[in-house]
Amino acid sequence: MSKGTETRKMILRKSAVIFNQQGFTGSSMSDIMKATGLEKGGIYRHFKNKDELALEAFEYAIGVLRDRYRVAIAGKNSAEDKLISVLSVYSNIDKEPPLEGGCPLLNTAIDTDDTHPLLQKRAQEAMNEWLRFLKFILNEGIVSGEFRPNLNVEEAAIFLTSAFEGNIMMGKLFNNSGYVQKYINQLKQYIELCIKK
Amino acid sequence: MSKGTETRKMILRKSAVIFNQQGFTGSSMSDIMKATGLEKGGIYRHFKNKDELALEAFEYAIGVLRDRYRVAIAGKNSAEDKLISVLSVYSNIDKEPPLEGGCPLLNTAIDTDDTHPLLQKRAQEAMNEWLRFLKFILNEGIVSGEFRPNLNVEEAAIFLTSAFEGNIMMGKLFNNSGYVQKYINQLKQYIELCIKK
Repeated sequence: MSKGTETRKMILRKSAVIFNQQGFTGSSMSDIMKATGLEKGGIYRHFKNKDELALEAFEYAIGVLRDRYRVAIAGKNSAEDKLISVLSVYSNIDKEPPLEGGCPLLNTAIDTDDTHPLLQKRAQEAMNEWLRFLKFILNEGIVSGEFRPNLNVEEAAIFLTSAFEGNIMMGKLFNNSGYVQKYINQLKQYIELCIKK
Repeated sequence: MSKGTETRKMILRKSAVIFNQQGFTGSSMSDIMKATGLEKGGIYRHFKNKDELALEAFEYAIGVLRDRYRVAIAGKNSAEDKLISVLSVYSNIDKEPPLEGGCPLLNTAIDTDDTHPLLQKRAQEAMNEWLRFLKFILNEGIVSGEFRPNLNVEEAAIFLTSAFEGNIMMGKLFNNSGYVQKYINQLKQYIELCIKK
């Protein structure tokens, strides 16, 4: 990897966390300069402006999550295990979150829905990708006979995502993974009684 | 009501929406001046600084919600009806949200969890008040024999809140109340199979 590419990746990695913690408007180029140790020129050499940097930092953050979800389902044989594993990745939210600052999809959605149409559009696309991923697992469970054949996959994916994302907000608000553990217990109940055959 | 009190309330009403849409950092005093039609001095006569205004605007926003929830449970006889009614107040999210900009508790939690300890603390208190309210309804349902006597009220309140708040994010992200309708359908399933006797 060339020195330029390395610097570019370092800028993305650091600014992904800053945008995730402080939001788009709340993150200034001087915050990014401080975090990367670069001068303004060193950042603008790689990114045209704050908008371009924010969009690419969001892609970077979503990539981190995507990898995390792939790891979460690896080696799991049942659709139920995959579902629980993916929907529990924030179980250590106070000590070891997948990305510092919480879920970039949740944060970007909240941060931009009334203010930044371009980032909002990217958040919509990332949400659609996530929903497809969840529906894939749910359909797998129907085909394998684990889940109810008449399960409303679309509805279940939306409900599970709602609970998952809202719970990240609660865990972060109190900086306490106890809120995540309690959600996981009820999540298991919901899967057991509303999704499984 | 004196003229001063009226102006104060008008400032709170307008700035509650601005903070709810744009967040604390994303809202400037000039945004507030524009929305209220007041000069800077006219705002500072009532509020010491942006922090004080934001804290009081948050209280105002939570008050709007509190009234909305009281209306939602009024005249409902069963705990199940109360629960569904309260957890469906965003069913018209794209046309008629309880407060423009989405849920102030969700927005403030996300906006401030890494950046503004004072507002975060107020968001924690408002969340605790909300959880007590939900647990009160759940306990009512246990006492009346509608809900399972061994229901884990704490867990259920956290799970329901997670789904409720995460769903507001989804409905707002796509500006589409279809996401809320689908969540409500699954919410009813969860109440039916995991909470009711």
